Amino acid sequence: MSDSTSATAASIYETIETIAQNARKASRLLADASTAVKNNALEAMAKALNDQSAKIISANAKDLAQGAKNGLSSAMLDRLKLDEKRIAAMAKGLLEVAALPDPVGEVTEMKRRPNGIVVGRMRVPLGVVGIIYESRPNVTADTAALCLKSGNAVILRGGSEAIHSNRAIAEILAESAKAAGIPENAIQLVPMTDREAVLAMLKMEKHIDIIIPRGGYELIRFVTENSLIPVIKHDKGVCHVYVDKAADLEMADKIVLNAKAQRPGVCNAAETLLVHQDVAEKFLPMCAKTLGAAKVEIRGCEATRKIIPGAKAATEEDWYEEYLDLILAVRVVKDFDEALDHIAQYGSGHTESIITNDYKTAQEFLRKVDSSAVMVNASTRFNDGGEFGLGAEVGISTQKLHARGPMGLVELTSLKFIVYGDGQVRQ
Amino acid sequence: MSDSTSATAASIYETIETIAQNARKASRLLADASTAVKNNALEAMAKALNDQSAKIISANAKDLAQGAKNGLSSAMLDRLKLDEKRIAAMAKGLLEVAALPDPVGEVTEMKRRPNGIVVGRMRVPLGVVGIIYESRPNVTADTAALCLKSGNAVILRGGSEAIHSNRAIAEILAESAKAAGIPENAIQLVPMTDREAVLAMLKMEKHIDIIIPRGGYELIRFVTENSLIPVIKHDKGVCHVYVDKAADLEMADKIVLNAKAQRPGVCNAAETLLVHQDVAEKFLPMCAKTLGAAKVEIRGCEATRKIIPGAKAATEEDWYEEYLDLILAVRVVKDFDEALDHIAQYGSGHTESIITNDYKTAQEFLRKVDSSAVMVNASTRFNDGGEFGLGAEVGISTQKLHARGPMGLVELTSLKFIVYGDGQVRQ
Repeated sequence: MSDSTSATAASIYETIETIAQNARKASRLLADASTAVKNNALEAMAKALNDQSAKIISANAKDLAQGAKNGLSSAMLDRLKLDEKRIAAMAKGLLEVAALPDPVGEVTEMKRRPNGIVVGRMRVPLGVVGIIYESRPNVTADTAALCLKSGNAVILRGGSEAIHSNRAIAEILAESAKAAGIPENAIQLVPMTDREAVLAMLKMEKHIDIIIPRGGYELIRFVTENSLIPVIKHDKGVCHVYVDKAADLEMADKIVLNAKAQRPGVCNAAETLLVHQDVAEKFLPMCAKTLGAAKVEIRGCEATRKIIPGAKAATEEDWYEEYLDLILAVRVVKDFDEALDHIAQYGSGHTESIITNDYKTAQEFLRKVDSSAVMVNASTRFNDGGEFGLGAEVGISTQKLHARGPMGLVELTSLKFIVYGDGQVRQ
Repeated sequence: MSDSTSATAASIYETIETIAQNARKASRLLADASTAVKNNALEAMAKALNDQSAKIISANAKDLAQGAKNGLSSAMLDRLKLDEKRIAAMAKGLLEVAALPDPVGEVTEMKRRPNGIVVGRMRVPLGVVGIIYESRPNVTADTAALCLKSGNAVILRGGSEAIHSNRAIAEILAESAKAAGIPENAIQLVPMTDREAVLAMLKMEKHIDIIIPRGGYELIRFVTENSLIPVIKHDKGVCHVYVDKAADLEMADKIVLNAKAQRPGVCNAAETLLVHQDVAEKFLPMCAKTLGAAKVEIRGCEATRKIIPGAKAATEEDWYEEYLDLILAVRVVKDFDEALDHIAQYGSGHTESIITNDYKTAQEFLRKVDSSAVMVNASTRFNDGGEFGLGAEVGISTQKLHARGPMGLVELTSLKFIVYGDGQVRQ
């Protein structure tokens, strides 16, 4: 995670502190920017990305060359690559954020209290958002847009593998935003890829209000262990589909296939299938055939392997695994409670779905499963800001505080109490 | 913070892990407990506190004796002391929580999406709440009641100065709750007062969902630096009253007196008064007279001291200070913007109030000041769960994530998405 910069830890800390202080100053001005100014800026930023695509592609070529030298897989290189079409898609994303309603300034729950003060809540930006990511360079544009629309200054800290692309994109966005009337330093990219820069960010609790890490286990653990700033984790998704004894098995078959195989590399794809023992003998052969045709490997418990003799054996580790691949762990459970226990023990609190036609069981599953999204008779793949009607999202939060599930514009804001009085004092 | 226990760090960690695992198990059952069961338990707990007051008073006597030996001030000893009347007040607090509406299970925002899935949000408990406090022993009963009503298992970790009282109260509450049908281990007190016990709690991110520290700067810093669990801080209140040039000065005089002196030792008391230069010569002499009669010491800026010659000089440190005492820092500002800048620089984001009759200035203050409560023409002392109509509170959160301002029952819950489908798969 370090590169050729010869900066010392102390000078890195100073650079990050300056960035964070400037972000704080910008955030005070941006919090009060009108929706019109913010939308105009997003449109100008989209235009600038398209107009200056050559600059981005040329920067991206450096990352691709470095990546090839470092032995990145061709799949990784493809994720990293930017071309005209992908840049146009990024620009379109900015226009979609411009079209979303502005959450800032909404006042709700205004009530008059017995002594005459009128108390309500006003929706306001969080302030300064720090995003630490390892993903594709389009995250730079997406998150900058969501933060700007929600009135937050953003500090972006992308991975070293995309540093040239990220720098080019951030520079274009920051310049075009400023030209459109957005305060200077509302969008900043950390220029260094040293891990010390991340560490310094995590200590800026005076200037940064929230840290959102997006990446692998190691990154998220590092951030959680070192941050003095509240963190919203976008952690792994070990999602379950539970096929109840009262399931429509044809529906279950279609949903299991979709949840596992429609896009296996994402966090809301299913990783474990639980099947009630009463329907296992009928359902598992159907399911094995469908999954086999989609090239999904099954790793089963003992009971599963009796019914599907070709299946590999699942180990204890498999129940915790987020494969992000065409692999599905399968377990036969003796009843509904065993399914609930399995999910409570091995699940990551992301997304779980039950397939059943039993009213009471469906309601109980919705109540008792403690995950960011709990579903009946639907694919886990629907846990997504767009599918839920929230618009674009920063990611899917797997924690319970502040934001749970898809984290969109509203989740990038906070509520403060406002009070209108006419001279009241406390008795 | 350590006592006479000879436990090693390893055995402390094990004890805390067992407590945390048991709390997690209890939380799954408690999350689904009916409102009737929870309310009956709260009533039984209130009765048990009154019935067993002799046991509490006898335990409290040990804390008082130890406190006197350790040289606690008489004010501190008074805060620590429990008698029949104070125990009856604790019991009444439990009945008040029973009377509040149950937030768990509420479903909102149900909407049908274009593909026919119906998506909404269900309010659910956070799970396991860890409370680390240094305050009076009544916190033990208050927070246990709020956590129980909101469906959360609670792990209480009080300070060493009240350990005997806390143990007696927690034991009575846990036993009477269990007898009333609440799952075992829903209410647990950490029996050790070693700091290692706090450290161990902060590492139980698998079993504890939220940590709420309530205490001084050192405790809050220690918790923030060491926690792998999300923390909701209940930090200091450096609250401001700003008397605008368009203020009703008689109203301002009454509000400043109330905000400072009605109960100076609490977080929503005012610590700094800002006065617009246009009204300083008229207002400050009035104000000095009123505050003087209430024995409030003024620490003024240079301009203030020209108008009130007897005032002490304020240093740079005074603007950051939470006196919690009959002392008020006073500064004359040249305009509204200088007041906003002062609050942004020195404030703690707790509570600020403007006194003005100017419509535009009032609205701008409400919009631009970034605090948990922002007020016009009212005393800062109103930032309180009861005064705002939320009922009892765990405390007042000074951070922006999840809960900002008074933290009541609703803030001890989270929202999960629920989805009703009839076989939908993602395209």
